[in-house]
Amino acid sequence: MLGNDPVLLTPGPLTTSPATREAMLRDWGSWDAAFNRITQSVCADLVQIVHGENDYVCVPLQGSGTFSVEAAIGTLVPRNGCVLVPDNGAYCARIVRILERMGIAHVALPLGEDEPATAAAVEDALNRDSRITHVALVHLETSAGLLNPLDAIAAVCKRHGKRLIVDAMSSFGALPIDLRDGGIDAVISASGKCLEGVPGMGFVIVRRTLLEECAGRSPSLALDLHDQYVYLRKTAQWRFTPPTHVVAALRHALDRFAAEGGQPARGARYTRNCAVLIEGMRDLGFEPFLRPDVQAPVIVTFHAPRDPAWRFADFYAAVREAGYILYPGKLTQVETFRVGCIGAIDANEMHNAVAAIGRTVAALGLHVR
Amino acid sequence: MLGNDPVLLTPGPLTTSPATREAMLRDWGSWDAAFNRITQSVCADLVQIVHGENDYVCVPLQGSGTFSVEAAIGTLVPRNGCVLVPDNGAYCARIVRILERMGIAHVALPLGEDEPATAAAVEDALNRDSRITHVALVHLETSAGLLNPLDAIAAVCKRHGKRLIVDAMSSFGALPIDLRDGGIDAVISASGKCLEGVPGMGFVIVRRTLLEECAGRSPSLALDLHDQYVYLRKTAQWRFTPPTHVVAALRHALDRFAAEGGQPARGARYTRNCAVLIEGMRDLGFEPFLRPDVQAPVIVTFHAPRDPAWRFADFYAAVREAGYILYPGKLTQVETFRVGCIGAIDANEMHNAVAAIGRTVAALGLHVR
Repeated sequence: MLGNDPVLLTPGPLTTSPATREAMLRDWGSWDAAFNRITQSVCADLVQIVHGENDYVCVPLQGSGTFSVEAAIGTLVPRNGCVLVPDNGAYCARIVRILERMGIAHVALPLGEDEPATAAAVEDALNRDSRITHVALVHLETSAGLLNPLDAIAAVCKRHGKRLIVDAMSSFGALPIDLRDGGIDAVISASGKCLEGVPGMGFVIVRRTLLEECAGRSPSLALDLHDQYVYLRKTAQWRFTPPTHVVAALRHALDRFAAEGGQPARGARYTRNCAVLIEGMRDLGFEPFLRPDVQAPVIVTFHAPRDPAWRFADFYAAVREAGYILYPGKLTQVETFRVGCIGAIDANEMHNAVAAIGRTVAALGLHVR
Repeated sequence: MLGNDPVLLTPGPLTTSPATREAMLRDWGSWDAAFNRITQSVCADLVQIVHGENDYVCVPLQGSGTFSVEAAIGTLVPRNGCVLVPDNGAYCARIVRILERMGIAHVALPLGEDEPATAAAVEDALNRDSRITHVALVHLETSAGLLNPLDAIAAVCKRHGKRLIVDAMSSFGALPIDLRDGGIDAVISASGKCLEGVPGMGFVIVRRTLLEECAGRSPSLALDLHDQYVYLRKTAQWRFTPPTHVVAALRHALDRFAAEGGQPARGARYTRNCAVLIEGMRDLGFEPFLRPDVQAPVIVTFHAPRDPAWRFADFYAAVREAGYILYPGKLTQVETFRVGCIGAIDANEMHNAVAAIGRTVAALGLHVR
């Protein structure tokens, strides 16, 4: 009954393993010790993935990843703080919108959509504006698939004594993140991305001593990470009804993650997927939007063909018919579309996907070059 | 493999049907038309359940039900509004906490945990304090299982020209709610309650003309119902990653709801469950906390036995071993525990549950009377 579902070549929700979905076939009591153990083991595993065992705690939160981003900002940044936001895409812009809503001062560092934030540019901004207390960095800007240099920026923040909050939505689990160097104060991600769970919860891995300073600071009750943390520590339960089935699926997905070999193995598989995709698409005449050195192996933006007959909706529908779901572009200046390389798929599936795209191009009579 | 999971006698998460859980065995693209149709049909069905087709829209929201309560308050109540909160339990108190966080003026109407809000008391409060612009009513206070008289209070609000926001978390789908009389401005509930879906999303059914006045009012981006509504209307998509599997399960649960006969049939089944439970527990010597005329057929609070050997944790563990998960009490003054009568269970299952509780009482040697 499920064999013919299309494969999701999207940045999350993505294609999960059948066994991960089957973990949702049970109901769990949110007050029951069996479920509480799942929550605790999920949080422990998430902290370990980024090497935060000593000084960091994981606070899970209901909702999409953006809910966790807003919760981290609202809980960790004081009202009189000022946040530097390197801006090279829609997810950076979303952080700016969140700050605007909260009435927190912020400084955007405008960059091109193909231009990574550099440590030097961040340092310049810190030197120019002494009001800045925090930096909010999107590790992997999903708008184009761009990688920002986290470690170098973390080192600058540490040297300047600035707090660094990292939106690692699309990188967590796939790319190395190491909290042991101490330049990162909080890392945010979600269940339905590179961990290959289903969507429905986010989490924030945050320096314990920092979080413990933040009682009552959040302007929101639902998005108060400190309150969630204190309650979890006291009762082993989420404050409000957890998405039990989503959490159980993430537990299973983390078992698969460990069995695969953790982040290095996951990152290697995605890197192979990405290489197969880019090479195959180039052979068809599609050009990646990003330079190879800033392209993360998670989602690839391709220029749309110049053929006047090109319409993404038609292309999308035809590729879907062939078994693959693509993703629209999200850039403001150029017409593009995106193809994800993440999820429970391997290089063989990427070969098949490229072949299906090739057949679609031919069937639609598109001129790609 | 799943046959031996305990039955959840809890107010949500609850026991869902196997077919509802199986609806989560597929992955959905959040941008794909097939998923967008699910969202649209779910919203249309939810509005119909409370007869809001003409003037109301349904805005779904990621997260637990509390996230939707906070979103409704933050989006619909102006900063200079003043909210009357009849208070007979923990969920009323939670609304007060949300208002405090937002810095919105409010007036609590303190009541006993066994004392329903009356239309007369609400009217008195409105007459006493002309600042009040909104009333936030918990329809069914899950703390004790108490039913507040929604229609009578809605009539008072309408007569006084006050906005009424109803937290119908534990009543929606089980008890009649009718928006056609016009006294209710917004109704909030969630997927994992009496609709018998899995937890992970809430929704607000709100008067369209009211919502359209609320652009930019929410202090939160993630919890901005107006923004979610506008984006959904424009794109048929959720603003941020939806909990796709949870939404698909709710679609299936709503099909079952309709097949059962909608709210009247669902309410009748729960009423039978509740009657079997109360009668059987009385036979064992357990006394309900509430008077029958204010007891909603959703969750029943029982006084703990006076036996000095009583410990809820032991009782819970033993009943769990017998196949049923109970719920702790949530009252402040008396020692109680709770038993839910909702979920994909029938009177026969309630008989079995009572029998299991009876055997547990005997095995533990508890004196209940």
